[in-house]
Amino acid sequence: MKPHLVTIASLVFLAPFLVSGQYDPNWESIDSRPLPQWFDDGKVGIFIHWGLYSVPSYINEWFWWSWLGDNSEAHDNYMKQNFKPGFAYEEFGPMFTAEFYDPVQWADLFQKSGANYVVLTSKHHEGFAMWPSSYGFAWNAMSVGPKRDLLGELEVAVKNTGIHFGIYYSLLEWFHPLYDQDKANNWNTSQLPQMKSIPALKEVITKYKPDVIWSDGEWEAPDTYWDSVGFLAWLYNESPVKDSVVVNDRWGSDTRGKHGGFYNFDDRYNPGVLIPHKWENAMSLDKRAWTHRREAVLSDYLTPHELVDQLIATVSCGGNILVNIGPTKEGTIPIIAQERLLQMGEWLGINGEAIYATVPWTYQNDTVTQGVWYTSNKDITKLYAMTTIWPDDGTLLLGAVTPAQAGSLQMLGSPAENLQWSPATPSGIRVTLPPMNRNRSKWAWTIVVNLLTS
Amino acid sequence: MKPHLVTIASLVFLAPFLVSGQYDPNWESIDSRPLPQWFDDGKVGIFIHWGLYSVPSYINEWFWWSWLGDNSEAHDNYMKQNFKPGFAYEEFGPMFTAEFYDPVQWADLFQKSGANYVVLTSKHHEGFAMWPSSYGFAWNAMSVGPKRDLLGELEVAVKNTGIHFGIYYSLLEWFHPLYDQDKANNWNTSQLPQMKSIPALKEVITKYKPDVIWSDGEWEAPDTYWDSVGFLAWLYNESPVKDSVVVNDRWGSDTRGKHGGFYNFDDRYNPGVLIPHKWENAMSLDKRAWTHRREAVLSDYLTPHELVDQLIATVSCGGNILVNIGPTKEGTIPIIAQERLLQMGEWLGINGEAIYATVPWTYQNDTVTQGVWYTSNKDITKLYAMTTIWPDDGTLLLGAVTPAQAGSLQMLGSPAENLQWSPATPSGIRVTLPPMNRNRSKWAWTIVVNLLTS
Amino acid sequence: MKPHLVTIASLVFLAPFLVSGQYDPNWESIDSRPLPQWFDDGKVGIFIHWGLYSVPSYINEWFWWSWLGDNSEAHDNYMKQNFKPGFAYEEFGPMFTAEFYDPVQWADLFQKSGANYVVLTSKHHEGFAMWPSSYGFAWNAMSVGPKRDLLGELEVAVKNTGIHFGIYYSLLEWFHPLYDQDKANNWNTSQLPQMKSIPALKEVITKYKPDVIWSDGEWEAPDTYWDSVGFLAWLYNESPVKDSVVVNDRWGSDTRGKHGGFYNFDDRYNPGVLIPHKWENAMSLDKRAWTHRREAVLSDYLTPHELVDQLIATVSCGGNILVNIGPTKEGTIPIIAQERLLQMGEWLGINGEAIYATVPWTYQNDTVTQGVWYTSNKDITKLYAMTTIWPDDGTLLLGAVTPAQAGSLQMLGSPAENLQWSPATPSGIRVTLPPMNRNRSKWAWTIVVNLLTS
Amino acid sequence: MKPHLVTIASLVFLAPFLVSGQYDPNWESIDSRPLPQWFDDGKVGIFIHWGLYSVPSYINEWFWWSWLGDNSEAHDNYMKQNFKPGFAYEEFGPMFTAEFYDPVQWADLFQKSGANYVVLTSKHHEGFAMWPSSYGFAWNAMSVGPKRDLLGELEVAVKNTGIHFGIYYSLLEWFHPLYDQDKANNWNTSQLPQMKSIPALKEVITKYKPDVIWSDGEWEAPDTYWDSVGFLAWLYNESPVKDSVVVNDRWGSDTRGKHGGFYNFDDRYNPGVLIPHKWENAMSLDKRAWTHRREAVLSDYLTPHELVDQLIATVSCGGNILVNIGPTKEGTIPIIAQERLLQMGEWLGINGEAIYATVPWTYQNDTVTQGVWYTSNKDITKLYAMTTIWPDDGTLLLGAVTPAQAGSLQMLGSPAENLQWSPATPSGIRVTLPPMNRNRSKWAWTIVVNLLTS
Repeated sequence: MKPHLVTIASLVFLAPFLVSGQYDPNWESIDSRPLPQWFDDGKVGIFIHWGLYSVPSYINEWFWWSWLGDNSEAHDNYMKQNFKPGFAYEEFGPMFTAEFYDPVQWADLFQKSGANYVVLTSKHHEGFAMWPSSYGFAWNAMSVGPKRDLLGELEVAVKNTGIHFGIYYSLLEWFHPLYDQDKANNWNTSQLPQMKSIPALKEVITKYKPDVIWSDGEWEAPDTYWDSVGFLAWLYNESPVKDSVVVNDRWGSDTRGKHGGFYNFDDRYNPGVLIPHKWENAMSLDKRAWTHRREAVLSDYLTPHELVDQLIATVSCGGNILVNIGPTKEGTIPIIAQERLLQMGEWLGINGEAIYATVPWTYQNDTVTQGVWYTSNKDITKLYAMTTIWPDDGTLLLGAVTPAQAGSLQMLGSPAENLQWSPATPSGIRVTLPPMNRNRSKWAWTIVVNLLTS
Repeated sequence: MKPHLVTIASLVFLAPFLVSGQYDPNWESIDSRPLPQWFDDGKVGIFIHWGLYSVPSYINEWFWWSWLGDNSEAHDNYMKQNFKPGFAYEEFGPMFTAEFYDPVQWADLFQKSGANYVVLTSKHHEGFAMWPSSYGFAWNAMSVGPKRDLLGELEVAVKNTGIHFGIYYSLLEWFHPLYDQDKANNWNTSQLPQMKSIPALKEVITKYKPDVIWSDGEWEAPDTYWDSVGFLAWLYNESPVKDSVVVNDRWGSDTRGKHGGFYNFDDRYNPGVLIPHKWENAMSLDKRAWTHRREAVLSDYLTPHELVDQLIATVSCGGNILVNIGPTKEGTIPIIAQERLLQMGEWLGINGEAIYATVPWTYQNDTVTQGVWYTSNKDITKLYAMTTIWPDDGTLLLGAVTPAQAGSLQMLGSPAENLQWSPATPSGIRVTLPPMNRNRSKWAWTIVVNLLTS
Repeated sequence: MKPHLVTIASLVFLAPFLVSGQYDPNWESIDSRPLPQWFDDGKVGIFIHWGLYSVPSYINEWFWWSWLGDNSEAHDNYMKQNFKPGFAYEEFGPMFTAEFYDPVQWADLFQKSGANYVVLTSKHHEGFAMWPSSYGFAWNAMSVGPKRDLLGELEVAVKNTGIHFGIYYSLLEWFHPLYDQDKANNWNTSQLPQMKSIPALKEVITKYKPDVIWSDGEWEAPDTYWDSVGFLAWLYNESPVKDSVVVNDRWGSDTRGKHGGFYNFDDRYNPGVLIPHKWENAMSLDKRAWTHRREAVLSDYLTPHELVDQLIATVSCGGNILVNIGPTKEGTIPIIAQERLLQMGEWLGINGEAIYATVPWTYQNDTVTQGVWYTSNKDITKLYAMTTIWPDDGTLLLGAVTPAQAGSLQMLGSPAENLQWSPATPSGIRVTLPPMNRNRSKWAWTIVVNLLTS
Repeated sequence: MKPHLVTIASLVFLAPFLVSGQYDPNWESIDSRPLPQWFDDGKVGIFIHWGLYSVPSYINEWFWWSWLGDNSEAHDNYMKQNFKPGFAYEEFGPMFTAEFYDPVQWADLFQKSGANYVVLTSKHHEGFAMWPSSYGFAWNAMSVGPKRDLLGELEVAVKNTGIHFGIYYSLLEWFHPLYDQDKANNWNTSQLPQMKSIPALKEVITKYKPDVIWSDGEWEAPDTYWDSVGFLAWLYNESPVKDSVVVNDRWGSDTRGKHGGFYNFDDRYNPGVLIPHKWENAMSLDKRAWTHRREAVLSDYLTPHELVDQLIATVSCGGNILVNIGPTKEGTIPIIAQERLLQMGEWLGINGEAIYATVPWTYQNDTVTQGVWYTSNKDITKLYAMTTIWPDDGTLLLGAVTPAQAGSLQMLGSPAENLQWSPATPSGIRVTLPPMNRNRSKWAWTIVVNLLTS
């Protein structure tokens, strides 16, 4: 019953001494690199979508493309009603003020959220670089707008807290004329990758040493166009982060879920079943966008309950969760997002034992009781049953746990007293919960089952 | 034991047929007007601080004065670092965009919050009018910035929901040269009141018919300077709102807590004891400011628990609560504020019976059990004991209730079953609460005590 | 033959001891005040149209009205193509930078131009005050834009050169709501004059002591609406400039050419015949506008020849000339205007004797030779014949001069040698001009005829 | 006495069939290409400095470098006083409005000025491209500011008038990080030339087919760094303008006056003596800058007399004159510059025969009479003596003309009557000029001497 788990564990646990081998520029070799262990253990990351799209801060981060690539009526109306004719997207640059940007304050919040890594959009599809890039003249945050090395400042602050620092990076740039020319040439020329995408990516890695390269914007062109395997061989063999870095799976039009490091598949991927390769659920607190939207309302945001639900389901199925926030152009994190991150941190402060450095169990969710998900510690001596619903009658039926497995039971965050339980019919065990009160965990509760080894 | 209550009730209940009498321009006559009943019954209002200060949206709504009147270093630094030299406060005007302003959406939120009146800053100390004023050429929201009648649009939307609409109005204007001249003349001239303050106030009242005139900016000059009694006589005798309008007590340097309609005393007045004249606790969700501050963080905001605490304490002591929010220059209400208002509405949805149209009881708070406050219905057949603390042992001691008074007891929001209780020692009754669960009220819980009449 | 001249002289020469009498608030008394002599002697003034219209600086200074009052298609297109929707005229305020404004440099230029007075638009129809007015809160150059007392600085610089300083002042304000209300009341209410026009006018006069009050914006309402005679009685009896001030004739819908001080009649009035009351030709270097227009081209400007033509014709007919320039929003005077003023100054440097402190002669222009105009000195011992055409044959026929009148003749700017002349047929004298060369006057040349008294 | 002239003529006259030969990428071959004849015949060009520096439009076009490269106090003060802290030069982009840019109107003015070619700054040292360049993402006039192909529109308009169109192009970019890196590598790497300078130059040539490549920004690095001979070989052998294009001499740190096409030497080169290689005097109407300066005053501009002086002296010495103007950010040509160009055109309309398609004569200027310069027609049958001083006595001494050479003499622009002359002592001829009058040429006058062949 546990083959999947073994597969994952084999990837995960053999890693350290193999990571730093020499890799050849082909997928077979690249894919053979084990994932550094810190990533699977960390489970929770913060995703930060921050860029020029944070200036219009409207609808979503695809603003430029929707407006001028897709000719969306909503965007066109917005621009016509609020800007002068001929206003260029580039003119948002000077409006990107970041005057309240305090990366130490951000890092403190991330730490309190319980996250173990942070991924910042270093360059989104718009092409605007968040660091002073030699390949982004007049189109980076040091040249215009903030006039600061936004990425570099965050790198230092985040690393100082012990959290891993990573970058999102878009290979394509929507409106780069060289990309258009390459596309018109059916990807037989590689002007953009050679003149911009790869040199700038190597620059940002060399300079800021990120532990995560979260690639994106790969989808239109084959990985040969981007020379992805060439880049990854450089990354794994020569780069300053060759031993610690993890990458995702977005490296060409046919690589998602097939090649690279961990798999992201599509955005907000959350299958609800065990995936036999390390994966990550990149999702956003705002259900409708990755960037801050000024027009958002409360109902657009996940409730703390929904957030904890997703976190639990994701980790139970072998995934990491990458929780996205969209800072404002002023450099602040919307207070509602602060609240959600702190609520997640509050929950993890009590229930983190059931999440961090755990592995999926035989079963992911309980098929008898809705809202119950399982993880276990690595040596499978403790089972964590997390329920997102507090039963009205105060007893919880764990259908996947046999009475024979069940040693003592406790609730995380409660005084260390053993819970009462009894065998259930036709199977499982029924646990009597302690009274709910103000000091208990909110939104979801963890029953620790000390497994009896037969 | 009940003389105070009687006093209040006499003010309150005799009102309707007396309100519309003829009043003379002296305080004795003005003060004799009963307060229209809707105000005391309504209990909960929303205060909206929205104006040009919503553009810098920094520190607080006294931005202009702190910067150029008080020469605050923080403000000076902010302006020097983010604006060009010589930047005038007036230049914030065009930046007041209000592009997302949707008064119907606002009114819907206010309705869901459980509020019964809304008070908008029609003109704050900066002098900027939120309606197209004939007396604020080039200095109102129709001339610059939004180019909309912000106040007029809100009036319609709010009145359509059945909520009472009111206005805040500052008599003084910090930097008006005529005010400076009057001040230099020791208030022996009244150029500002005659040329601006009173004509513009009458204009806004005549045009928008507000039910609340929340005066402010009165403090430096005697009420004779403002001709407050002259204005109030017009308001009570001739204005289109003479029958429904309520006013506060800020009409001159010596009027707070003495003259006018309900008393505001100082900002955030919340004495914790019964006040023998109808009063209002004007407070703000952001503990540090009335305007939206872009730099605010979560800890600056009241938690929902703190908000409900204040609401209960205020009403128990005979006050109304005026809960302030600070919309953004774009016309949105910060999501954290939306959340708090909806949380208040959620609480009032369950516990409103203990708040609306109630009167203070003999005791305001329980001297034995911390966190318990009382109100009663008008004919004193029901007592409402509200506790903001759920006791760990599940039983609540009501020290102010004698066993002889106690008929059946229920909890609001629970199934209509009677609660068990027993006499306590040395006095009071001890009530057994039903189990806390997910569906119950949050933050505070109301025990209804059906009073036995002896 | 000289009655007209006598009339003028009587107004002009009796002035000094009568000017400061007491005047009653009726036209008969007001009109009886003699014009201070300096004005008629000065002949040449500089008119400066500078205000918020200098920001759009397009088409003309009536920009606001054309755009939103007249709904001109050209203006509407310009605004739609270059500004965001909802852009308010008031938003031009912050764009009025004046960073290069150097009033000392301006005054130096005016002095070199040969002008004896300067008239600045203190407040045009838009209502924007160029000084820190107590009656123009947030709508004056000290509050927004330049953040300087543009008028006050010019007053000091101009007076320091010995040139008289004056102000243009518009009584009406296009978009003032009080003006609209007064108009709707058929001018039976006077809110604008009482609340704004007259208090602000007295303020600017009291503060800056201008010697010219160049009223405008009077035309829609009767002078009784403006209480013009009341104001003028105050000006003549009590104001600090009661002895030196001159005013024009724009004081109500029926006063032009009838009441006040000197007569302007309409803009650019230049009748070509003698006018029996002191008058002034207010004209502009740019033939199509009074404000600086960014789109202007060379052909829109008067050539130096045309400018000198107008100057000569105006003075010959008893007028003063008020030469208008339109500074830029940056505070510079367009170089082409600098050049024209310096060219006028160059001409006056040679020919000023024929202009300053002269009086009209019996004949204004020569009916035989086109382009010849006459003035004389006050005691009529010298006649100045100015020709704007250098005759191809080098001889000039003066048809209006009889041989009997002609004593010695010289050309201004030439060595003091007498010119040869001979009687012409059937009348007049024919003068032999000296050769034209590089050092001679340009554009027009003056023959001094020393008159023989019979 | 004529060897120099022969040298020039040999370059000039042999041209057409040799221009389009094959050239090797070495200076010997490149330099052997004859200059297309149209350039020497044309004599007069218009230089246009227009770019982002036209936005600050202050001091000169080196604004960015002076401010942030040289840390000029004047620039620093200007920026500190007028812009917010952290304002980036790139932010001038959106302020480059060009709303009044009318290339047809410009071309009409250039035609009236008498010019035969126009050279626009396609990319100055700031790197901002005036056409939509694939190598200047977010840093060109199509992306930001005007949102128009400023260069392309001018190309069409200019070519439609029959005037040759050319481009100025800066090889270096002050603040390009790749240039800094190359410089730090002692020019042993060529990242900027390879990634930007040469690809973008070939792009603009291929797209707009300019007849003049006016290179600049070459001075710090050797021509090998720029691969100038490689580029020029492409230009002469393969480009679409290989038969008509002319280039200047700025191709590396040691090429001025040595290699390339015509020689510019330094800016404003005007030696006053014959130069034995075709050269060009690039000068500016504003004596202190190439860009429009908003603070300029009349005395900064050349008088028409000075302009004509320079034109005559330059052509007499074998040069072309390239008269620079600086349009405004709005797209207008300052009226004073319009006036000077039209004055030049007025002069050339009368005297063009002495300028266009002429060759230097034996003598360039007259050593006896100051201000007299000579040219001749190509077959040396007509000598043109141009005098910039009209002699007071009306006679002109031509010291370089022997009585034996002098056939009939006329003045250009006068009726075709022969002038009187007589032999002078000790040499030369003395010509009696016709009377100066209003219809004659201004500023300089041309005596045509029909040469007698011995």
